[in-house]
Amino acid sequence: MAGMKRAAVIDMGSNSFRLVVYGYEPGRYWQHVDEIREAVRISAGMGDEQRVQPEPWERAVRTAALFSSFCSAASIDDVTTVATSAIRVARNREALLEEIERASSLEVRVISEAEEARYGYLALANSTTVEDGFGFDVGGGSVQAMRLKGRKLAQSASWPLGAVRVSETFLPGEKATGKAIKALRRHVASVTSDWFEPHAAGRAAGIGGTIRNLAAAAEKRAELPFTDAQGFTLTGEALEELIEELAALPASKRGDFPGIKPDRGDVILGGAVVLSELMCQAGVEAVEATDAGLREGIFFERLLVDRDPPLFTDVRRASVENVANRYHDDLRHQRHVAELSLQVYDGLGGLGLVDADDVDRELLWAACLLHDIGTAIDYDDHHKHSRYLILNAGLPGFDPREVELIALIARYHRKGQPDVSELGAFERPGDERKLSTLSGIIRLAEQLERSRDRAVAAVAVGSDDGTVTLRPDTRADATVAIWSARRSSDLLSRALGRTVEIDD
Amino acid sequence: MAGMKRAAVIDMGSNSFRLVVYGYEPGRYWQHVDEIREAVRISAGMGDEQRVQPEPWERAVRTAALFSSFCSAASIDDVTTVATSAIRVARNREALLEEIERASSLEVRVISEAEEARYGYLALANSTTVEDGFGFDVGGGSVQAMRLKGRKLAQSASWPLGAVRVSETFLPGEKATGKAIKALRRHVASVTSDWFEPHAAGRAAGIGGTIRNLAAAAEKRAELPFTDAQGFTLTGEALEELIEELAALPASKRGDFPGIKPDRGDVILGGAVVLSELMCQAGVEAVEATDAGLREGIFFERLLVDRDPPLFTDVRRASVENVANRYHDDLRHQRHVAELSLQVYDGLGGLGLVDADDVDRELLWAACLLHDIGTAIDYDDHHKHSRYLILNAGLPGFDPREVELIALIARYHRKGQPDVSELGAFERPGDERKLSTLSGIIRLAEQLERSRDRAVAAVAVGSDDGTVTLRPDTRADATVAIWSARRSSDLLSRALGRTVEIDD
Repeated sequence: MAGMKRAAVIDMGSNSFRLVVYGYEPGRYWQHVDEIREAVRISAGMGDEQRVQPEPWERAVRTAALFSSFCSAASIDDVTTVATSAIRVARNREALLEEIERASSLEVRVISEAEEARYGYLALANSTTVEDGFGFDVGGGSVQAMRLKGRKLAQSASWPLGAVRVSETFLPGEKATGKAIKALRRHVASVTSDWFEPHAAGRAAGIGGTIRNLAAAAEKRAELPFTDAQGFTLTGEALEELIEELAALPASKRGDFPGIKPDRGDVILGGAVVLSELMCQAGVEAVEATDAGLREGIFFERLLVDRDPPLFTDVRRASVENVANRYHDDLRHQRHVAELSLQVYDGLGGLGLVDADDVDRELLWAACLLHDIGTAIDYDDHHKHSRYLILNAGLPGFDPREVELIALIARYHRKGQPDVSELGAFERPGDERKLSTLSGIIRLAEQLERSRDRAVAAVAVGSDDGTVTLRPDTRADATVAIWSARRSSDLLSRALGRTVEIDD
Repeated sequence: MAGMKRAAVIDMGSNSFRLVVYGYEPGRYWQHVDEIREAVRISAGMGDEQRVQPEPWERAVRTAALFSSFCSAASIDDVTTVATSAIRVARNREALLEEIERASSLEVRVISEAEEARYGYLALANSTTVEDGFGFDVGGGSVQAMRLKGRKLAQSASWPLGAVRVSETFLPGEKATGKAIKALRRHVASVTSDWFEPHAAGRAAGIGGTIRNLAAAAEKRAELPFTDAQGFTLTGEALEELIEELAALPASKRGDFPGIKPDRGDVILGGAVVLSELMCQAGVEAVEATDAGLREGIFFERLLVDRDPPLFTDVRRASVENVANRYHDDLRHQRHVAELSLQVYDGLGGLGLVDADDVDRELLWAACLLHDIGTAIDYDDHHKHSRYLILNAGLPGFDPREVELIALIARYHRKGQPDVSELGAFERPGDERKLSTLSGIIRLAEQLERSRDRAVAAVAVGSDDGTVTLRPDTRADATVAIWSARRSSDLLSRALGRTVEIDD
């Protein structure tokens, strides 16, 4: 991607230093293209003295030099380096930062708790559809809560209730008693209840590894086709079940629980209890997980520099266009297939042949924009590659079931009978007809736009004696396109249980 | 890919017209990016009169107009249109071509049999490693044979022995008797033996759908992990078994045979018998299938315009660099990881710790060039995406087992214990150690080149008291890279059964 700019964000956290490189073209796409993580453990041995110790100090300086070399070698000039909690509170931070800057020429910005909360909010508001409600970030040392009103950050708070900290205090040792868990809940409630008291409930979303791991564990437990925790809604009920099962295991075995990363095993239960109590306090029934976090928040401020606050207008739309633009130089064909598809969908809706459903309509639109991205891998079987790419690209704002539906509509845009069993445990009643109808529509639209020159400018839908008739409005010779569409009408016809005819 | 040029090749064949779009940057990469196929059946009803009939005539003109609109809409100026057999022999071809040119502004070049053979040869010599031997193309009406000497086309021949033609004459009806098959063999022998007589054997490769389908059927029958027939070697023995099984089925069921496309079912047996007899005549024991064909031959002439004949210097190398360049703007990091990996491999070979094997060395090099291509999909799990992309990109010149080995080495370049069972029926004795060793080497080289600035310029390998020691030659601070390499030496250490140490 020759026009791609790159920006690096370096996050000097308490446990690890991380360099993330984003590739982007403003207004077109962005993606995470590279990463290095180094377990610097800057806070090791800091204790009450609050001083960075000699060994972590040296690791920090060397890691900063490595990150700086990496950016130079990759010709990345746009580097934002931030330091959080551990360095923020260190008494010897000035001397450390001076040495880091000398050794690496990185300019380190120590950010405040409020700035950290704002970046968390930007990550969350740009990767979920929560507009009013709460955001949670359960870290190792502390927990942040954000209150969103109309997609704006209304308020934030931070408490020393991180998973590591509460596990050490309330759940030491191998066994977690019911009594200890209750004590932890009471502690969380007493510390946080004042902040939550006056607020009405709403939806909630969560950032950070603890919530992501709990969402992944719930997804695996429900035997859902697992790709990613992104967009998965963890209900309070599922969380209680996880807490019960994790508490029944000795701490040293909790890292083996499917979905939980081994190195979080010893603190995951503490994090889960804290999250559960925060949800109770907020009065929310579920929390949606997102992959984005502090570093993405910092990057979004750069990507969306012309907006205040720097937010995508519509997260779902932005996600789909982002992926489409990564694989195509222009989207004229894709947008026209979408336009024709939606005309057919709306026409069928008008006739009462499909439920006029806004979500289905949006999934169809998304599949149209993404149906051909697989050609980047190979033209042969590109419909299958499109599915793989959609499943793995990440579409923030959509939940995993919706992502699979988009992927399957794209998968069947050329040929084959849609196989609804590929939805696995995501399948719901009516999905077979839904998938066949939506795939049947895109398949026809793709043929009507076969010459890619919008020769079929629009399409109207009529019905006569049980036959559905599509009437293309053509502005050039579209004979072959219409022939091909006729050969591709079977799927829609079977889905609707009607003959589908295409007029000349 | 902003710098990508596009060239379209339109092939007006007897059965279908096909438009293929290639995207490329000269000297960097090429790929098949788009395609439209229209079953024009220009030869329908031509009979002995040799005249294109009104209906196919109209389909041909309309399809040409569609292809032309497609190219204009996609802003493709570089369009090569060729017509083969059916149009070549049509008595009314001039009038047809005039009308096509008027309706579509496509300039159609009618190519001779010799030109067709030359393009077949270019396809074959640029997508297989056959240097001396034969090329076969079993079409519907005719069969082409090419003789290669030192990668040059020494001679070619064409006989009316295509799969459709011989099936109609020798194997009509549902049942194929042993007698009919023998008669077909004798006929093929009598028509072709003069041409083959004086030549020595060698290797053989085949182009065209018949051979590709037979290779795919043999691959599936052997329960090999199937991705593609590209590069698969169909042995004479496997072909005889297929002939026996296909002959036992009624003609109408042969299209259900796994690997055989349904629309080829009625003629596949005839094609198989012809191929088998050609192999006997040529004295070759196997034929390697390739996806490339006439259209690629035409495209290669354009891509490699500065070479005579237009051939890649080394097909395997060209395939790997082609794919690597499609996903990366520059390959400095990848080439340096390859250099360090090969230094380690050769060093271990010098110590007798690995078999110094040229093929393994080349697979390791290929995996190094391709290990990071999965980052184009998503940074997370990019090692898994790299495997998917390698398996699906097509690496002409490598056989499917080799492609899977390259994919697995790339898959394990970051973490995890290589799982040799993923090779399925491709697994051979010693593969576990091979895969662990090669993955272990790339994993270390990747860490040594962690800063991507070639701070570790080279690495030497020594041995002392049963310990293998890597001695990096550094030209900048490589402390963190060396630390990380030390944390990544386990896999190689287990594979070799030796402690692996990395010097400062």
